[in-house]
Amino acid sequence: MRILLTNDDGIYAPGLLSLYKVFCPLYKTFIVAPESEQSAVGHAISLSSPLRVKEVYRDGRFYGHAVAGTPADAVKIAIHEILPEPPDMVISGINLGPNVGINLLYSGTVSAATESAILGLPAIAVSLNTYKDPDFGYAAKFIKKLIGEIKKRVLPKGMCLNVNIPALPASKIKGIAFTKQATIPLNERFEKRTDPHQRVYYWQIGNGFLKQVNTDTDVYALSRGMISITPIHYDLTHYPTLAAFTEDFSLNL
Amino acid sequence: MRILLTNDDGIYAPGLLSLYKVFCPLYKTFIVAPESEQSAVGHAISLSSPLRVKEVYRDGRFYGHAVAGTPADAVKIAIHEILPEPPDMVISGINLGPNVGINLLYSGTVSAATESAILGLPAIAVSLNTYKDPDFGYAAKFIKKLIGEIKKRVLPKGMCLNVNIPALPASKIKGIAFTKQATIPLNERFEKRTDPHQRVYYWQIGNGFLKQVNTDTDVYALSRGMISITPIHYDLTHYPTLAAFTEDFSLNL
Repeated sequence: MRILLTNDDGIYAPGLLSLYKVFCPLYKTFIVAPESEQSAVGHAISLSSPLRVKEVYRDGRFYGHAVAGTPADAVKIAIHEILPEPPDMVISGINLGPNVGINLLYSGTVSAATESAILGLPAIAVSLNTYKDPDFGYAAKFIKKLIGEIKKRVLPKGMCLNVNIPALPASKIKGIAFTKQATIPLNERFEKRTDPHQRVYYWQIGNGFLKQVNTDTDVYALSRGMISITPIHYDLTHYPTLAAFTEDFSLNL
Repeated sequence: MRILLTNDDGIYAPGLLSLYKVFCPLYKTFIVAPESEQSAVGHAISLSSPLRVKEVYRDGRFYGHAVAGTPADAVKIAIHEILPEPPDMVISGINLGPNVGINLLYSGTVSAATESAILGLPAIAVSLNTYKDPDFGYAAKFIKKLIGEIKKRVLPKGMCLNVNIPALPASKIKGIAFTKQATIPLNERFEKRTDPHQRVYYWQIGNGFLKQVNTDTDVYALSRGMISITPIHYDLTHYPTLAAFTEDFSLNL
């Protein structure tokens, strides 16, 4: 089995290293990841600027390829140029911080998995629910176990998994929940500041979610100390409205 | 009625101006758009850098606010900071070039509309199917007509419309199709080059779609000279797999 590892925190991130340590002894493991942190870049790709790729060594050994681009760029160039043949699985992460609810839209971690799905490859995005003192050990081992189960199944083409793991000792984790993406808005605002040259600028601040969420969502499961697994895809069509419009929307040219 | 106009080609783009010319005489019209071109940024937002906003004048009159950020940034700061009250409708475009199929994932134009939907506002992304010699006149007028129809309906919260318009004279347009997003991959590759310092770099090249598409998709409708209208949303959950996993996926902690 061949595994491609990528992320949005950059090739030097500890979350990526933790996956590498677990998978390298087991499978043919490749790393192609952004050279620098690319959080909140969403599904951006580089069309107006060229991509540079460089080899990265760690402790004197070849570690992987760093791409001066976004997570989606890294996946595309890995598949089309760098890897000798397509991997059997792409894992994006382990992200420092959760990727649940509408944050999926902004997440480079998730977009790397979605990009893999677009290219026809099974993929998992994995995030740890903390921004400080991360211990990625359990999360990496859980992904290993999850892949063992996934290998037994035929997954639909174009689908990938978004996994969020509580930053808790294994014994404190409450279970595993298959969830849907919460769609409630973020509790966000802008902080207005003035620079030393008396010019105004703004910082964007997102501070959790606006209100209580449904119990069948990723946001809820993670808040209750459960591992959340959400199957996602990239067909944005809103089928109920498509059916309604096709039925009764009258508009002439 | 209050309308917010934005785009991903930047506040000085002719496609935005064409919408402004049509809507300014009719409604209270605001422009908040990226300062520079932001194509293919997807749903990126700026968290690591502050946002600057400046007033832009055109022919000696106030035109709108330019945001040194992404289309999603522009929508967020418009709603949270700049506009006195939320608009009744957000229009993103008119984009130079189509946004159909999986390009929706990469599109800043579409992401501005999706971001508006996340914030609870009705929104339309509109793109013209050409990269050169654009005539945005008919497209802008069509959007005016579309809004007239939309105003008569109660649209589901969180849904927005992705509209693609052929670059044809009005008399040559074949009709209006309500479509789903095509999910076929792009025919893409990388061109490898060497710079004057003998270092390798890559250009990403996407050249149409890989194969024939279903006749009920945006890609097909546009290729046949029809206006394509796709209702889209931002819930990425793949419900069939969620149901299957909930039924029979066994995994322990």
